[in-house]
Amino acid sequence: MVRQARAVATRQQIITGAARMFEQSGFEGASLGDIVDGAGTTKGALYFHFRSKDELARVVIEEHHRTSIDTVDAIANTGAGSLRQLVMLCHEMARQIVHDPIVRAGTRLTLEFSGTADAPAQPYIDWIASAQKLIESGIARGEIRGTVDPPTLARFMIGSFTGVQLVSQVLARRRDIEQRVDEMWGYLLPSIATTQDAAELAEVRVARWTPPAEAVTATADPSVDV
Amino acid sequence: MVRQARAVATRQQIITGAARMFEQSGFEGASLGDIVDGAGTTKGALYFHFRSKDELARVVIEEHHRTSIDTVDAIANTGAGSLRQLVMLCHEMARQIVHDPIVRAGTRLTLEFSGTADAPAQPYIDWIASAQKLIESGIARGEIRGTVDPPTLARFMIGSFTGVQLVSQVLARRRDIEQRVDEMWGYLLPSIATTQDAAELAEVRVARWTPPAEAVTATADPSVDV
Repeated sequence: MVRQARAVATRQQIITGAARMFEQSGFEGASLGDIVDGAGTTKGALYFHFRSKDELARVVIEEHHRTSIDTVDAIANTGAGSLRQLVMLCHEMARQIVHDPIVRAGTRLTLEFSGTADAPAQPYIDWIASAQKLIESGIARGEIRGTVDPPTLARFMIGSFTGVQLVSQVLARRRDIEQRVDEMWGYLLPSIATTQDAAELAEVRVARWTPPAEAVTATADPSVDV
Repeated sequence: MVRQARAVATRQQIITGAARMFEQSGFEGASLGDIVDGAGTTKGALYFHFRSKDELARVVIEEHHRTSIDTVDAIANTGAGSLRQLVMLCHEMARQIVHDPIVRAGTRLTLEFSGTADAPAQPYIDWIASAQKLIESGIARGEIRGTVDPPTLARFMIGSFTGVQLVSQVLARRRDIEQRVDEMWGYLLPSIATTQDAAELAEVRVARWTPPAEAVTATADPSVDV
């Protein structure tokens, strides 16, 4: 049992080390030697857990993706309105890109691979499906206009968010990401909400969700100064 | 003079060959050997014109960028309204990504480098500046609401477009890009236009611009089946 716990810890240590290298140097630039050194382990240990750098990159993208899906579920459990949940989701994804090294690495890898023939499509498909469900329930509850087409809006929302965070990264190293995501909702909400009441729209726009304290501690990266 | 014309042709041949390889294999995956073979030239000729693969990538990104700026100017010369020009610009940029091999390669390289410390920021800065100018003149002409903040909307538009084309590439190999850009305007226009008249908004949304025939021929890629 102790040995198994140690194996799990080593595996996680390697994933965290790989994430750090992928984020810093990209997929091509990250060497297995640097990953092993950064993780404070050995090549033997790495090859015990992972077949290749490709597999490590896939695992980082999967962990990032699992974090996103967990976030969707956790926000659903708040019972907030659909529009508020959509706003919370985008802001929480933005917060994770800044604070969670696995999410930062997954974002860089997903971006790097998006030009290739085997671009990772599943994260986008699942994000769009989650947003679509929220939009459908928003229409059913009368929060979102009945003229909105849920798959179309879901796809635009995810595309928009992806580009907004990308431009924030290139132009401001993501220092302005929360403001940029807020502006995105400033332009989107009046087009999709049934209410045209400015105060009500402003209230939706400031909806935020943060994970419980222990979850933040588990993934926080103290080296990031934001 | 003949020799100089031949040198210019060879240089352009190398850039086109490099663009093809960068688009196919990305920056790391593209080898100078493959670029030389694809361009039907020699390593000697390549090194006569370019110092390194880095320089070739920079030149491809610059040519893509020049194409974008030329497009902004050409669309300005139509004298169309500001909102129509913004719609035309996004659709023409989407058309170029599909049809122009330099634009496709520049897009992939810009994306790949966007995670790095020296991400190419200038294209984004210039696109945003061009959009901002159009938005300002749209406000002055009474087409765009006075409550819109030009730099903010310009940045959101360019971010949105970047993400919409990225998701279209990952999920549909860009086959649906025109439709997705049209949907983007469907969500943006009602929030920013002064008119709320559905017929007028629909008219703005279908605004398109295509370059004169000879320009299309010069950059068209007959191998793309769209």
